[in-house]
Amino acid sequence: MKILFENVKLLSGEQVYVTVDGARFDYVGVERPSGKFDQIKNCRGALLIPAFYNTHCHAAMTLFRGVGDGLPLSRWLNEKIFPAEDKLTWDATYWATLLGCAEMISSGTVSFSDMYMFEDAVADAVIECGVKANLARGLVSFDENADFAQDTRFCEAKELYNRYNGAEDDRIKIEMSLHAEYTNVEAYCAYVADYCRAHDIPIQLHLSETRDEHEKCIAKYGVTPTGFFERAGVLDAAVTAAHCVWVSDEDIELLAQNKVSVSHNPSSNLKLGSGVMPYSKIAASGVLVALGTDGAASNNSLNIMKEMQLAALLHKGMQYDAAAAGAREMLDVATVNGAKVQRREDCVCIAHGYRADAVLIDLNAPNTLPSSDLYATLMYSADRSNVLMTMCDGRILFENGEYKSIDIERVKFNFSRCVSQIFE
Amino acid sequence: MKILFENVKLLSGEQVYVTVDGARFDYVGVERPSGKFDQIKNCRGALLIPAFYNTHCHAAMTLFRGVGDGLPLSRWLNEKIFPAEDKLTWDATYWATLLGCAEMISSGTVSFSDMYMFEDAVADAVIECGVKANLARGLVSFDENADFAQDTRFCEAKELYNRYNGAEDDRIKIEMSLHAEYTNVEAYCAYVADYCRAHDIPIQLHLSETRDEHEKCIAKYGVTPTGFFERAGVLDAAVTAAHCVWVSDEDIELLAQNKVSVSHNPSSNLKLGSGVMPYSKIAASGVLVALGTDGAASNNSLNIMKEMQLAALLHKGMQYDAAAAGAREMLDVATVNGAKVQRREDCVCIAHGYRADAVLIDLNAPNTLPSSDLYATLMYSADRSNVLMTMCDGRILFENGEYKSIDIERVKFNFSRCVSQIFE
Repeated sequence: MKILFENVKLLSGEQVYVTVDGARFDYVGVERPSGKFDQIKNCRGALLIPAFYNTHCHAAMTLFRGVGDGLPLSRWLNEKIFPAEDKLTWDATYWATLLGCAEMISSGTVSFSDMYMFEDAVADAVIECGVKANLARGLVSFDENADFAQDTRFCEAKELYNRYNGAEDDRIKIEMSLHAEYTNVEAYCAYVADYCRAHDIPIQLHLSETRDEHEKCIAKYGVTPTGFFERAGVLDAAVTAAHCVWVSDEDIELLAQNKVSVSHNPSSNLKLGSGVMPYSKIAASGVLVALGTDGAASNNSLNIMKEMQLAALLHKGMQYDAAAAGAREMLDVATVNGAKVQRREDCVCIAHGYRADAVLIDLNAPNTLPSSDLYATLMYSADRSNVLMTMCDGRILFENGEYKSIDIERVKFNFSRCVSQIFE
Repeated sequence: MKILFENVKLLSGEQVYVTVDGARFDYVGVERPSGKFDQIKNCRGALLIPAFYNTHCHAAMTLFRGVGDGLPLSRWLNEKIFPAEDKLTWDATYWATLLGCAEMISSGTVSFSDMYMFEDAVADAVIECGVKANLARGLVSFDENADFAQDTRFCEAKELYNRYNGAEDDRIKIEMSLHAEYTNVEAYCAYVADYCRAHDIPIQLHLSETRDEHEKCIAKYGVTPTGFFERAGVLDAAVTAAHCVWVSDEDIELLAQNKVSVSHNPSSNLKLGSGVMPYSKIAASGVLVALGTDGAASNNSLNIMKEMQLAALLHKGMQYDAAAAGAREMLDVATVNGAKVQRREDCVCIAHGYRADAVLIDLNAPNTLPSSDLYATLMYSADRSNVLMTMCDGRILFENGEYKSIDIERVKFNFSRCVSQIFE
């Protein structure tokens, strides 16, 4: 499929033509390209930006959106979420992921990292709706002496890798996930880390999300959660650590030395009363920081544009510095950094040869006029209602309010059926 | 005009019929009312909520959206905004206010408090587009010995009051505004306060927005800005103070004793690096707290729904308490508290006899499913894209993406013309 986009504005301010050939951008320039196109779209001066990447999610948790509102993390998990998750099925995970993908697509996100159960259902949903995902079966362990090679979840994770890794022209990547320090024993972490290093499989972690988690770890092991994972050899693998609200200066140094990436989840951390990640300190240390929504049960949205805008405001206020977390920097955090975290370096650049992931933003709406500073418009004024189009690997997934790859009424119907079954 | 809304969901969870007769709600109940209606609208289970009230705004500053991005308050004002404001005209203020009203309407806001220049242009725009507003000409003074009664701005403010106060069935209320401590001398404040007390005219202030303002005032006068206004007798009038980021515990006590209302502007305070207002402390003192957007030049949005959601997240994170700034509380802050601040106690309640201000929210969108907790849906999941309808005083101003009282293309055209003239 060859598409020509006319009258496109770029963040540089340039008015250009953009063409897509298959999954990739073919041409970006001021001269109208010749040749035949399957579709020609007049963008009427709308802004084409790199698409958003969500580096920490539990997409199927849309099922639990709004459940246990107002509870802190540990009570929310133990009293509300874990009992509901006991009733989770493949079917529910599949439909809930599709609903989550619809929410992401309509707010400009084309790729997400996921850590949950029934990841094969998640993979099937991702394949169906046309987005990308780095999927990991969440691993937990409580017995130092178990036969790790026979661990059910670990076997599931390996099977998932063998079945799906690289599928659909690499839209699906399979990773592993050590859920957290407080849900794992050190020997198991070491075992999984060895396996992942040997097979070059990235690992997703929850890390120092709450003060309680951080301090209990120090009391129990004499090291922080970061120290715990370092001791287990986990940080030597390719790791993305979500949250990092309570990391110490020494932790940050360890993360930087080990090239650990961090997924910053500001809404979830605020909503659960966990606190605020020291973004600027972590970013200044050289750590690659990207954004995540966390699950819809603790956010309660899957909107990276919103996370990006929240982060840009939050860190200015925290640091009493209007120049902190600037608009250009935070756009990178929400887009290209996320692609790097997901090892998708050929994405998120609107230029020849890159995969055609992009979002078209309406600059002619009451809330985006005037657009004297395009980065500022994107960071502080635009919202989901200004997303005119979302494209992933050259395929238009959402356009003028309509889903192109999802039968949304069918998804909503089945999703609601699954919610009823879990909470009946 | 009599309107019947069928199949409406309320925040109580009830499924009801709602009727509007003229400017007011006539009936809310589970039985279908009899009688003839000019319009019957099937709401298909969407959620009808009280409309949002914006208690601090400079609506015409949409002209300067995105200008001076990244600068702290004082540099932003002195280097960017004041020079641009020198070129402001009646015409530009009128069109820029209409654009701002369109943005507010489409995000569910029906009333705003405004402090700026050319407030007669603002009043005309408000009358035309059907929202409500409490308007105040910003007053500044630098000469203790001037003849205050002849002060140009004060005379303008009185004229505005005489011409517009109570206009359009009270949609327009005129107030006065002492811009800030750092832009006024004490004797002038005392003079204006005397006048306002005598005529029962409310006063709008900027108060302790930045640390710099707060500390310079202490250095200059030996009292905080709150103390400065108390000494001038201003706090004895009906006062709404915007920002209050740096108020001390003693200041908060003074505000409570004097029944001063506070307009909380979280986005603007974060964006300019000013800090975070101690919301829970102020609310716990008994002070009436409502929300404001500030101008689009420092926010850069005029979306109270977004401010409400930001405040709900922010204060949980600041206080490490998932139960702080709860969803029900913050909805009140964004709606009924705003109406109280504006002395519009007959608004913002969906019940017989109240003025019919309301917003219809789509509960069947990918980002609002499931709605197991309606308050949580509203506070953490819904956004402007879910606003199906905005109604003010029984008049539908926005419905299914269309403005009903604004010729939006004409407004955008004239707005853009005015922007060009100012920045040419």
